[in-house]
Amino acid sequence: MSEMLPPGSTIGILGGGQLGRMLSVAASRLGLKTHIYEPGAAPPAGHVAEKVYTAPYEDEAALRAFAEGVDVVTYEFENIPTSALDLLESLRPIHPGRRALAISQDRILEKSFLNEIGLATAPWAEVTDAASLEAAIARIGTPGILKTTRLGYDGKGQARIMAPADAPAALAAMGGATAVLEGFIDFSAEVSVIAARGADGAVSCYDPGENVHKNGILHTTTVPAKLSEALRTDAVLIAARILNALGYVGVMGVELFVTPGGLIVNEIAPRVHNSGHWTQAGCTVDQFEQHIRAVAGWPLGDGARYADVEMLNLIGEDVARVPEFAREGRTQIHLYGKAEAKPGRKMGHINRVL
Amino acid sequence: MSEMLPPGSTIGILGGGQLGRMLSVAASRLGLKTHIYEPGAAPPAGHVAEKVYTAPYEDEAALRAFAEGVDVVTYEFENIPTSALDLLESLRPIHPGRRALAISQDRILEKSFLNEIGLATAPWAEVTDAASLEAAIARIGTPGILKTTRLGYDGKGQARIMAPADAPAALAAMGGATAVLEGFIDFSAEVSVIAARGADGAVSCYDPGENVHKNGILHTTTVPAKLSEALRTDAVLIAARILNALGYVGVMGVELFVTPGGLIVNEIAPRVHNSGHWTQAGCTVDQFEQHIRAVAGWPLGDGARYADVEMLNLIGEDVARVPEFAREGRTQIHLYGKAEAKPGRKMGHINRVL
Repeated sequence: MSEMLPPGSTIGILGGGQLGRMLSVAASRLGLKTHIYEPGAAPPAGHVAEKVYTAPYEDEAALRAFAEGVDVVTYEFENIPTSALDLLESLRPIHPGRRALAISQDRILEKSFLNEIGLATAPWAEVTDAASLEAAIARIGTPGILKTTRLGYDGKGQARIMAPADAPAALAAMGGATAVLEGFIDFSAEVSVIAARGADGAVSCYDPGENVHKNGILHTTTVPAKLSEALRTDAVLIAARILNALGYVGVMGVELFVTPGGLIVNEIAPRVHNSGHWTQAGCTVDQFEQHIRAVAGWPLGDGARYADVEMLNLIGEDVARVPEFAREGRTQIHLYGKAEAKPGRKMGHINRVL
Repeated sequence: MSEMLPPGSTIGILGGGQLGRMLSVAASRLGLKTHIYEPGAAPPAGHVAEKVYTAPYEDEAALRAFAEGVDVVTYEFENIPTSALDLLESLRPIHPGRRALAISQDRILEKSFLNEIGLATAPWAEVTDAASLEAAIARIGTPGILKTTRLGYDGKGQARIMAPADAPAALAAMGGATAVLEGFIDFSAEVSVIAARGADGAVSCYDPGENVHKNGILHTTTVPAKLSEALRTDAVLIAARILNALGYVGVMGVELFVTPGGLIVNEIAPRVHNSGHWTQAGCTVDQFEQHIRAVAGWPLGDGARYADVEMLNLIGEDVARVPEFAREGRTQIHLYGKAEAKPGRKMGHINRVL
């Protein structure tokens, strides 16, 4: 794709959650319409989109209608069934491309790719049975963490192995799925780089943010991250290397561990990322618009940071504190339009300009 | 209305143009849905709203359905037929209220109100026929400008009177409508104050912006306006006096002329205003969110200005320059999703951070 999609064009978004919602809003600023494809009822993105398709990813007729109504397809989450992608790809361009999706859907592919392009990850080994787990523990040692290679997020499909005796229970927790043993990393901080690559190959990275998790879910991201100048540059170079190696088009979230020996890649997400929400309050062009610009073939926008920001996620009942946040100076509120505040559910976030 | 509408509530917006579109986006940030009522087909706001009613303002059933689906009604333009307002008001709260609307729909009511609360306007006189025009010219002098009292905007329904001999032609141009003769004002600049008043009576004004018009249409607004500290304070006090006197709830645009004798009120608009679009790039909470907060009973947000900004309107074929603007640093693009770039049509704007 080398041409700018003209205003009036339509972006198809797979997934109708908060990321799709904020992508829709960003698209509207550029005069672009959005259609949402989402199996679940009443998707948050549907409140701000021109059209919503409510259908499973197995519904070929719905996928076809969706694709035919849009100019380009993108997505807000990476676990889209391959069959749906195959069909959509035969009808419309999909950005970011299939290779990035395949890599991010499979921890083994992801780590292999990262190591192949010269980037450090936690020590890891593929585990398919008791024997390969024993061999992995022998090589990597304990403590470690066993994770299913596919469909894990927010701490699910994971089991800690504090000592070799924990191995059988951890293996059982995988339920027969292929897994990966990762050695524990002695890190002082986790940082994210939100990186974008345009259809023209230009790369632009937002300033790294520092993440704090609570109960396995992102709690805050603060910019600037407390990083030396050298590590800050390293972080950006790592992200740029990944995007270039993939010929990537769109925004990617790259999570990095800060260790005494330098930066280690934790994981990558081929989409806009929770740890990039601060860009709404700190940059002329936020990560959502940057992603839309990239997938629509527009030049990337100006992502230079002009403010220090703390992003705080509102999880479950945190949303009851909105009246209090609404009275705070220098504070932006972003709510996702979800009806019910279930425990652990991301209901919104605030950006505090520091 | 003293309670905050909770997230998940719905704001009804009369009018589906760019102001309604940007109000919808702002509402989504607060977890609020929007329904749009618009007689014209394919309204720009419809791309980012949950629901669109396409019906004339005379359609009682449609108005009733619209009102019953929302929690509060607001509007993006002031020339709404009285009968529609009467019906809507019997069903749901309308903010800003009827008095502000009535005043802004009628130049004579507006000027009388402003003078009654002690604010200066251009010298003016009501004109209904040749005799009253002659008397008005005798009192105010020439040059002057004759305007219909209702439904005038962007230079329509207006005729200049450079000398008494122009009177008959100017009167004919009014087509029998009641008109007002305004004396010319010797002003050095036009500035706008975008002012907000919450349901709790709190008032918050954005920093005054300086407007430049081209062919009778707003061309640029620049903040800060070149004003002395004293005039800057005067501007804000004038706006606050107007909002308080009306018991206003929402955002208002107040246009002021800067004259050697001080500030003179040109006109007021009981809604978000083109000259306030710069707030999207210069403030934590922009004019659109501020308006939504007010009409939804939320506390007003932080409208302090943190950047110098120039807003440039994209009129008609200006929109062809978007590829160039998309490459500019520190530049935000806002396009309105209008299909056709007719001459004089507002297609979008850019905000340049200076």
